[in-house]
Amino acid sequence: MKSVQVGTRSRRYRVVVHRNPWRLGRLPDKIYGDSGKVVVITESTVAEHYLHSALSRLRRLGLDPREIVVPPGEGTKTMATVTKVARSLVEYEAHRGTPIIALGGGVVGDLVGLVASLYMRGVPLFHMPTTLLAQVDSSVGGKTAVNLPEGKNLLGTFYQPERVWICPAFLRTLAPRRVREGLAEVLKYGYIRAPELLEQACALSVTDPCEDMDLLESIVLRSVQVKADVVTRDERESGERRILNFGHTLGHAVEAAMTYRGITHGEAVGIGMDLALGIGEMLGITESGLRADLRARLKRIGLPVDVPAGLEREQLVDLALMDKKRSAKGLRFVFVTEPGKTKVEELERAQLRSIMRRLA
Amino acid sequence: MKSVQVGTRSRRYRVVVHRNPWRLGRLPDKIYGDSGKVVVITESTVAEHYLHSALSRLRRLGLDPREIVVPPGEGTKTMATVTKVARSLVEYEAHRGTPIIALGGGVVGDLVGLVASLYMRGVPLFHMPTTLLAQVDSSVGGKTAVNLPEGKNLLGTFYQPERVWICPAFLRTLAPRRVREGLAEVLKYGYIRAPELLEQACALSVTDPCEDMDLLESIVLRSVQVKADVVTRDERESGERRILNFGHTLGHAVEAAMTYRGITHGEAVGIGMDLALGIGEMLGITESGLRADLRARLKRIGLPVDVPAGLEREQLVDLALMDKKRSAKGLRFVFVTEPGKTKVEELERAQLRSIMRRLA
Repeated sequence: MKSVQVGTRSRRYRVVVHRNPWRLGRLPDKIYGDSGKVVVITESTVAEHYLHSALSRLRRLGLDPREIVVPPGEGTKTMATVTKVARSLVEYEAHRGTPIIALGGGVVGDLVGLVASLYMRGVPLFHMPTTLLAQVDSSVGGKTAVNLPEGKNLLGTFYQPERVWICPAFLRTLAPRRVREGLAEVLKYGYIRAPELLEQACALSVTDPCEDMDLLESIVLRSVQVKADVVTRDERESGERRILNFGHTLGHAVEAAMTYRGITHGEAVGIGMDLALGIGEMLGITESGLRADLRARLKRIGLPVDVPAGLEREQLVDLALMDKKRSAKGLRFVFVTEPGKTKVEELERAQLRSIMRRLA
Repeated sequence: MKSVQVGTRSRRYRVVVHRNPWRLGRLPDKIYGDSGKVVVITESTVAEHYLHSALSRLRRLGLDPREIVVPPGEGTKTMATVTKVARSLVEYEAHRGTPIIALGGGVVGDLVGLVASLYMRGVPLFHMPTTLLAQVDSSVGGKTAVNLPEGKNLLGTFYQPERVWICPAFLRTLAPRRVREGLAEVLKYGYIRAPELLEQACALSVTDPCEDMDLLESIVLRSVQVKADVVTRDERESGERRILNFGHTLGHAVEAAMTYRGITHGEAVGIGMDLALGIGEMLGITESGLRADLRARLKRIGLPVDVPAGLEREQLVDLALMDKKRSAKGLRFVFVTEPGKTKVEELERAQLRSIMRRLA
């Protein structure tokens, strides 16, 4: 068992990485807050694989678990689902001390995190991420969100969990495409902060990520360290946390342009990083050759490299300018100068349009 | 112009009390955050009286205001309205720096506060409360909320505004019944912390509260001071803030039992305080005679004193035990020992039932 400390202003907590999914280590007192009552919230696909073991393990720990299962997929991230889940919590007589466990990928984590922050203005939250993307990224840092028809993650809160339990063994049942998308975020950590992750990400088997458990654990742990380190210093994304958006400004635009169909978040982030490095090289901010390095890595992992056919660059710029990270003038863009180093620059609307037109 | 400082851990801000509704004093920089774009959110009744002046005043200050008008009444406090308002914000291209002004009573403040805390995970919020209840209570302290069919204020956040602008002159158009309900909260501050408010509350004209502007201003300012002082020391209601719930545990139960019809929040709080003082006297916690003192004051103001006919004591206890302030064992009950002094005690379920049966 290894752990990483996250120390935001609103809460200090540990992210625990353990090979055995149900060896949670010593449980925090808060999980026994409501005489042992605890609510596990998950989605139906994850429920099939892990809900039964989760519930029986929690029972053996002396807890009294209830379950709420939501439909899988991004479409479940709405305020209507938040309301529905909250009404189930009322039915279970959950109160301010009743802990909630989010068991699942990013969708479950974002949704349940929001529910936990809103229900009676906040109940204890525990994350148990089951995808690589959620383990290395979304379960750490306290961002919660649901979507509006107009865009993704437009409503949310900052709400830190009491603890994050990460079990890389959960990835045994993860589809290769979902492993690949997690690796896109791992590459991101490599470029912005921890270059040693670049080679490790490419070395992981996407069909059997648990084959080399040492490698997988090391990737997860190092990624979590980078994320924890950044959010500890800037919980609310007023400064340093922005570097985590490397590849995401245009990545989100790609996702939005595809109306989130036929492309995963990680795939879009890969394409977004490619564009960001391309723009950086054109402006002389990014050391030359870095874009080619990324493209080679994306190919090795099996991630797409180019903007999907049929998408217009113009459209991507327009969508990027609607992103929530934009300011009145334009948008703050995260550049990588060399592996492990970043620079945030304000790009004006016209400037971004002109560069994107000229970009190869 | 007078002002009170609120200093919670998450934000320090000023509550400004000014006789002229549109003399806002020096505006904080954040209101110019989005090149002067600002969104005023209000409900239709308030809009009739004050929206036009608000918008033209903001324009004269060099701002570029938009408006969103929601239906009046408690029924508007739902996640569906939150989603609707948020979609209007997207339409206005509001981003993270776009300030929102909540112009209205408690319903608007609770709802808009929640929207402001959720939209892009938080935009600058300004409260402009237009009822006595909102001026002395709900606009200060950062609690936001909407209702579920199962109960009031079950979903919400703690989200502090950038500033609260209080203009007692707004009360000129307030119905006497709404003035009375605000005075119930003023009495509460009197009993828990500031005994001088007890006589002042009874002296205010409910048909023309602005008749004696000095008295009104002094009541509002002192009430805000008590509230600000308490929430400064305990933003998240883990301790001292609980004293603000004096009269509210059973008051909420009365409201719920009436399904929030035919009774105002303040009226219910008056009845709740009567029960709380009665229970306190029975247990020897409250100095004897205090209940009679409250009843005389409620009558002078024109507030109801007794539990409405047809409501069973049993039912009130059951509802109180469903309150979000309850714990697994029972509930924490706020007692007044003597005017200005409180004591919080844990009451077990059975104990509360038995006392309520015996209470005159």
